Amino acid sequence: MSYQKIKGTQDFFGIEKQKFAFIEQTAKNVSKRWGFFEMDTPIFEATELFNRSVGDETDIVKKEMYTFLDKGDRSITLRPEGTASVTRAVVENKLYASTNPLKLSYFGPMFRYERPQAGRLRQFTQFGVEVFGVESANLDADLIYMAVETFREMGIKSMTVKINTLGDDRSKEAYQEALRVYFSTKVGSMCKDCQERIVKNPLRILDCKIDAKGEEIANAPKMSDYLSFESKAYLKKIVDLLEQLDVNVEVDQTLVRGLDYYTSTVFEIIVESESPGMKDLVLCGGGRYNGLSKDLGGPELKAIGYAFGVERVMIALDEKNTWNDFNASTDFAILAMDDESKTESIKLANLLRKCGKTVELDYVNTTLKPQFKLSERINAKTVLLIGEEERRNRTITWKGKNIVENSNNLPQEMFRNDQQTISMEQFFKRLRIYTRTKRWMEKNPKAYANYLLMRKE
Amino acid sequence: MSYQKIKGTQDFFGIEKQKFAFIEQTAKNVSKRWGFFEMDTPIFEATELFNRSVGDETDIVKKEMYTFLDKGDRSITLRPEGTASVTRAVVENKLYASTNPLKLSYFGPMFRYERPQAGRLRQFTQFGVEVFGVESANLDADLIYMAVETFREMGIKSMTVKINTLGDDRSKEAYQEALRVYFSTKVGSMCKDCQERIVKNPLRILDCKIDAKGEEIANAPKMSDYLSFESKAYLKKIVDLLEQLDVNVEVDQTLVRGLDYYTSTVFEIIVESESPGMKDLVLCGGGRYNGLSKDLGGPELKAIGYAFGVERVMIALDEKNTWNDFNASTDFAILAMDDESKTESIKLANLLRKCGKTVELDYVNTTLKPQFKLSERINAKTVLLIGEEERRNRTITWKGKNIVENSNNLPQEMFRNDQQTISMEQFFKRLRIYTRTKRWMEKNPKAYANYLLMRKE
Repeated sequence: MSYQKIKGTQDFFGIEKQKFAFIEQTAKNVSKRWGFFEMDTPIFEATELFNRSVGDETDIVKKEMYTFLDKGDRSITLRPEGTASVTRAVVENKLYASTNPLKLSYFGPMFRYERPQAGRLRQFTQFGVEVFGVESANLDADLIYMAVETFREMGIKSMTVKINTLGDDRSKEAYQEALRVYFSTKVGSMCKDCQERIVKNPLRILDCKIDAKGEEIANAPKMSDYLSFESKAYLKKIVDLLEQLDVNVEVDQTLVRGLDYYTSTVFEIIVESESPGMKDLVLCGGGRYNGLSKDLGGPELKAIGYAFGVERVMIALDEKNTWNDFNASTDFAILAMDDESKTESIKLANLLRKCGKTVELDYVNTTLKPQFKLSERINAKTVLLIGEEERRNRTITWKGKNIVENSNNLPQEMFRNDQQTISMEQFFKRLRIYTRTKRWMEKNPKAYANYLLMRKE
Repeated sequence: MSYQKIKGTQDFFGIEKQKFAFIEQTAKNVSKRWGFFEMDTPIFEATELFNRSVGDETDIVKKEMYTFLDKGDRSITLRPEGTASVTRAVVENKLYASTNPLKLSYFGPMFRYERPQAGRLRQFTQFGVEVFGVESANLDADLIYMAVETFREMGIKSMTVKINTLGDDRSKEAYQEALRVYFSTKVGSMCKDCQERIVKNPLRILDCKIDAKGEEIANAPKMSDYLSFESKAYLKKIVDLLEQLDVNVEVDQTLVRGLDYYTSTVFEIIVESESPGMKDLVLCGGGRYNGLSKDLGGPELKAIGYAFGVERVMIALDEKNTWNDFNASTDFAILAMDDESKTESIKLANLLRKCGKTVELDYVNTTLKPQFKLSERINAKTVLLIGEEERRNRTITWKGKNIVENSNNLPQEMFRNDQQTISMEQFFKRLRIYTRTKRWMEKNPKAYANYLLMRKE
């Protein structure tokens, strides 16, 4: 019998894992420069948290949650998204008390019980950021620009920010009423969920995956006609700032985003697909959720955030093919010609690793062929060789150039593609020059030379 | 109503998250130098995978698994440990075919349904490594040394490696039979699980958390009396190598480790607790599991690995108090004296962030007091100030020293604790010197100066 991963889950290894780590690292580095601090919340939470935050029964997120009873018969849900958990943590740990604004980022797996199909994942990974405590067009623009810059640093050159406002409470209510009136005569021909939405949250009809292409939606009342002066000015200021920051920005009045908790600013970042006939890819989405903290039992706390799916960004970057070179190269491979030399090679390998070098060796073979094969597979910059003669004479044989790359007092050509046998002292001297940035080596050059040269006779 | 995290789960934020990230990063950096590649497996797997790998019903891991039925009535388990998942992934993706040895590392959350009590976590985090395809004392010693070096780089100076061998199949069977005979007369007074273990896996009795202190166990037959010559020689070679690598190593014949799949080499790394009366802390455990791949439907594949719990290592490092300084400092805080200057400050902030600097600004206030308060809270190295005058004269006012830290052609004292107003051109010139390692800035100094100086009049 053999075992398979669960449908809709993935293993990441090799180049794919390196791409994954590159996206993670870039997002973390960028957000740090924008003043964010990382946080982690648990993989699962009490189900009520998500029921309360992500919306009513018609909501796609909620319908697809990974919910189960634990052994204490408590309903637990694998988190479907990050904002509810982060807000819960901010309220529970009273993080808002010490820092204002509070700027947090998170990275980790999320879960949706979707029917497995092409590209639909049950476990996917999100990077997200949240800012609590401030409502200002300055902040909103700065945050959206950070998202743009994050994708630029990953290699995506051209994208569009779609932005809208759901208005303040007064504007939102007036607009919802207008939508109810408008859709009341059309609802018969719409999907079952929309027939519920018209009562509970008619805004959602605009976002419906089934009906969204219909003419009814295109001709529906526009949010802009119901916005207060302040809401309009707020949105205009964000757009102005983003344009001054050289961002391609577009107001899209049908943009509502799929979660109940959004208020005021909502936005998406779109990248054009390069495959003909493919839809543009939504890389990232976010918005304000000024009411969520209070809904979760906390104080009133203005808030804005966004999130993106790592797997989805990988697809976009695969399409653009702007990845870095992930071909790893190893600093040293150490070849040993007999068992005793193998022991020496383990010691030398671990010394070099301590000095910050990536080192590999063949644990079993003492013949040349398989060991050279390994050196090639791992793309070793320098090959070191230890045999009986080297041990007897306290020398080492090497092949390759990297050991003298940073050395000024040695003719480089001499070492480029040559094989050379040099004394251990000489080797360490050169190593010290090469690894001069490593503090440990700087401090203990002699101790280490002794350590290595010490032999059990 | 307010919401709490589930008992036995944790939020990580602030300094605690920085400690967490330090442990993660150190473990990843070290394993990379030892030739390992990162991989991720899903958070949950089919329950049968863990039933098959971690052992029978008496096993603590299995009794405490987070198992639930998904909406398709399939039994799913949140992974209790990493080795079973990684081995499943290696077999399913045939990773063994291309690379030998195959060296993999993983980092992520694991789950056990323990009754919540002091220090018992339902979600905890493990870092682990696995090597497939080779059985050699050289490898085992190299791997154990890597674990030691990982903890040393985290700041733990002194630790002990406890090591044992469960022998080859023949040795293991003979020993198990001896244990059965020995315990058969004593089993009446032992715990319920041990009464089952005597039939299924008498080795486990030695590891029992309830009976382990008993005299019966101290006097039980020793593995060493049943080991083959080869097994003894293999263990001796690992010990010799570790001693040559300056590791404090101790053979402990009662060490069996808590998982059924272990064979041959098993080990733990122990650090002495500094709190009087506290037990020594097991930082890390691992061993060979040469039979697991075949048990999971794969080819016969020699394998060894270890794992450690991040939260547990945090406790050890807290005790030793050898943490790095986590007090973050921000490169620049930008203060703006009016709304138009605020817009300028956002542009300047985003330019500096693009150049690799950490920059923060107050999104709302244009009076000095709250903005200086923010600068202090974030520990800003340099404060930049933009007001009407600065905008009119295309200048900037700054306070602090870091901007000229790397500059050779400017008298440093001049800039140390002074407030100075300089031209934007001058500012960019110094910035270019200061950030000369940043390629982007190097390539686009003029373009960017223009960009920033360009004003909408």
